[in-house]
Order: sequence, then structure tokens, then C-alpha cells
Amino acid sequence: MSTRKLVLLRHGQSQWNLENRFTGWVDVDITEAGRAEAVAAGKLLREEGYQFDVAYTSVLKRAIHTQQVVLSELDQSWVPVHKSWRLNERHYGALQGLDKAETTAKHGEEQVKVWRRSYDVPPPEMPASDPGHPVNDRRYSTLDAAALPGTESLATTLVRVLPYWHDAIAPDIKAGKTVLVTAHGNSLRALYKYLTGVSEKEILEINIPTSIPLLFELDDNLKPVSHRYLGDPEAAKRAAEAVANQAKKK
Amino acid sequence: MSTRKLVLLRHGQSQWNLENRFTGWVDVDITEAGRAEAVAAGKLLREEGYQFDVAYTSVLKRAIHTQQVVLSELDQSWVPVHKSWRLNERHYGALQGLDKAETTAKHGEEQVKVWRRSYDVPPPEMPASDPGHPVNDRRYSTLDAAALPGTESLATTLVRVLPYWHDAIAPDIKAGKTVLVTAHGNSLRALYKYLTGVSEKEILEINIPTSIPLLFELDDNLKPVSHRYLGDPEAAKRAAEAVANQAKKK
Repeated sequence: MSTRKLVLLRHGQSQWNLENRFTGWVDVDITEAGRAEAVAAGKLLREEGYQFDVAYTSVLKRAIHTQQVVLSELDQSWVPVHKSWRLNERHYGALQGLDKAETTAKHGEEQVKVWRRSYDVPPPEMPASDPGHPVNDRRYSTLDAAALPGTESLATTLVRVLPYWHDAIAPDIKAGKTVLVTAHGNSLRALYKYLTGVSEKEILEINIPTSIPLLFELDDNLKPVSHRYLGDPEAAKRAAEAVANQAKKK
Repeated sequence: MSTRKLVLLRHGQSQWNLENRFTGWVDVDITEAGRAEAVAAGKLLREEGYQFDVAYTSVLKRAIHTQQVVLSELDQSWVPVHKSWRLNERHYGALQGLDKAETTAKHGEEQVKVWRRSYDVPPPEMPASDPGHPVNDRRYSTLDAAALPGTESLATTLVRVLPYWHDAIAPDIKAGKTVLVTAHGNSLRALYKYLTGVSEKEILEINIPTSIPLLFELDDNLKPVSHRYLGDPEAAKRAAEAVANQAKKK
């Protein structure tokens, strides 16, 4: 039995992470600090000798640019990259663009907690008439509009991530390729839940830190043999706690 | 009849352009000046309202990184990018890595002129045992070794570029997509010769300047209706002359 390697990587700090705003599908770039995080992730992967055969990312630039920095640090910019809307962050509906204070003022603290902490309750839907709705964005114009969400829960995020896992990523891993997936807190949570089989309740407690490579080793049937963060385990733990605390603050 | 748009872009200045070395398939990055050139190209395309649907580049980082900068400036990092070895620079065989003085000392001035100025005389072949030969590079490991050159003339460069034009780029243009191709002096010369039908003699006098977008407008049968450099025509002319002079110096 051979072991196959899959590395999941959450994008580095974005401008709206910094401002504690609901970002979702809004196309916000990484900050200079986020870029430095990506450089560090690339160096770590280089030191551990990773050789990727293919890379996947979303159609949002905070993930795309993070991956470009990582591949450049690895001197593997030539690796084929596939970008898909199915790896996008969870769509936060009408909350997108609001910061903590605005959201609480508009919807009340208890309601915001429900949207953040529940597995399958989506925030209010963004209407298709909103200029920020994906049906009004050129990058999604080749897709059936019916596929494009105006809001998502973690549950519905998982439902739209999984077909891409099955149709694109998993076949590459089965073919023996070493795969890098650079995406977002919730699209990676969706993959994490699918791969590890944790419960709907447990996945809400799993916080994936930004820009620390998460290695899954998979068997021939793509069942995880192990998974762990690369680099200093204490650093990964602290970073995950920081994400959890940021979420609590919202 | 609708007009289709194809933009060809040569990568910005690389470290070895600066040192006047034969680069070919050696994977040298762009300099800070090259990055600034790419930013300028991106701004120009943005000001003229270009909206790309798909982008093509080689598997060499000076072209890949130039394109990443351009797409980022356009805020179109989400555009699908296809990387192919068929868009690589001409392979300069045993001359790769040598600068002007070294090449002249080794082979004589007259001989070097022949290699640079002829359409179909390749430089001496790099042996497959050379660590720099593409058969020893992981990025080409999925290809039939027989396809990988140890040297190329402009004629043989055209022969390996054309299948990619016919199988990948042309179908996208026919489908109505606006296409960006970011590549190299000689792979772009090959496309230029094919599209315009200039003679083997004429193409040797065509110098494509770095990082100035070259727009082809094509009819439904992919015949060029027009082609021109974007931006200041005098700047494009001066840049082409600089390339021609650099070549003469070698």
C-alpha cells in the first residue's frame, strides 16, 4: 500500500480578516502580513521537500495569491493550477461586508451566534438584484445561475464542495499525485469533515489556522491514515485558538 | 462577423536578459524592473477595458510570474490559466547559460551570428546526460522524452508551438473567448509568423518588445484583421529596437 499526500492550506490574513468583517464571496486580497504568512508556509513546505504535481484553489484572490506565493517559494510555479468556485468560502448572504458591530446592531447578538455556531442555519439571503450576488459577477457567468448561492450554511457549503472533490481532486490523488488545495476556512472545514468523518457538532469546534499546511496522508481508497499540521505543533495550536477567539468576538 | 481578440505578451526583463545570457529553457525569474514592466502592461490593459476569459503561458516562471502580475493588476486573477511546455522559449541547446563573451570565445563570432540570425540552424545539442536537459526536469516527467528538445531553431520552435495553438488556444478563440498568451520572444515569434504569414526571412527582423501587449483582432476563421501594440506606438517601436540591438550585441 502506498500513501498519498494531500496538503490543505487556508489563505493568509486578508484585509477583512483584519477588520473583522464577514467576507464570504467578496473578493478581498491578502494583506502584507498575509503575504508573509504565505512565504513562511512555502518555506516550510520547501524545507520538508514537498513536490506538488497539481494545485487547486478557489476563484477568490486571497486564496489564489496565497497559493502563487507558496508555489513561487517552492520554485514550483509551473505546477498546473485549477481554480473552482466550488472551493470558495462559505457565502455569508446578507451579512457579507458587515463588521461585528454592524451585524449585532442589525440582527442582535443571539441571532448572530446562531448563524455562526450552527451547522445548517444560513444567514438571510442576498437578493439576486444585489450587485454583490454571484449572478452579477463575470467570473460566474458561464455557470447555471441556479447553482449560485445567495447564502450558505456550513452544511450547504459541504454539499457544493464535495462534487469537486469527487470529480477533480480525488481522481488526481488516486492517480498518485501529490496535491495542494489552497482555500478558505469553511470550504476546508467541509473537506476536513468529509475526510475525517467528525460529526456536525464536532466540526464547528475545528478551527483551521491561516497559512499553516495541514497534511493528510491517505490510503489507496482515499481514507485518511493520519493528518497533522506541518511545522511547530504549538504554533499551529495557538493559531487555531486565535481563529476560535476571533469567531467568538464576532 | 464578430471580431475576436487575442493579446500576446512577452515576459518582462529577466535576470539573464540583464546579463545578456542565452536563457532558453533555463528557469530564470523576472527582475524588479521586469515586475514593474508587467505592472505597466496590466494597467494599460485595465485602462483599455480588457476582460480576459482564459490565459495561456509556458512552464517557465518568467512568463508565469509576468502573467500573474498582469492578471492581478486587471483584478482578474480568477481567470483560468493553462501552462504548457509548448509555449516555452526556444531551446538554445549547448549555448544555454553562456553570455556573449563566453559564446564568442567558444564558437567564434561568425558561427554565433549564424545561430542567431538563421531560421532553421539550431545551436549544438545539449546531451540528455546534462542535468539541464529537460528529460532531467520533473516538470516534463509526464511527457514522452522523445518530444523534449536538446536544441531548437526558430523553425523547430514553430513546429512544437503550433499543435498547442490548434488544439488549445484557437478553439478558445473560436468559442468567442478573449485570450491572453504570455510567453517568450521566440515562441511568440512563431505564433506571429503563423498568424501574419510573414516569410522565414521577414520573421527574423520582427523583434517583439518585452511586456507591451500585442493585440490581434481575428475574424471568424481566425484570420488576422489587424494587429498592433497597445499604448504609445513610439514606446513600442523603441522597445523593439532595443531588443534588436541587444540581439546584435550578442
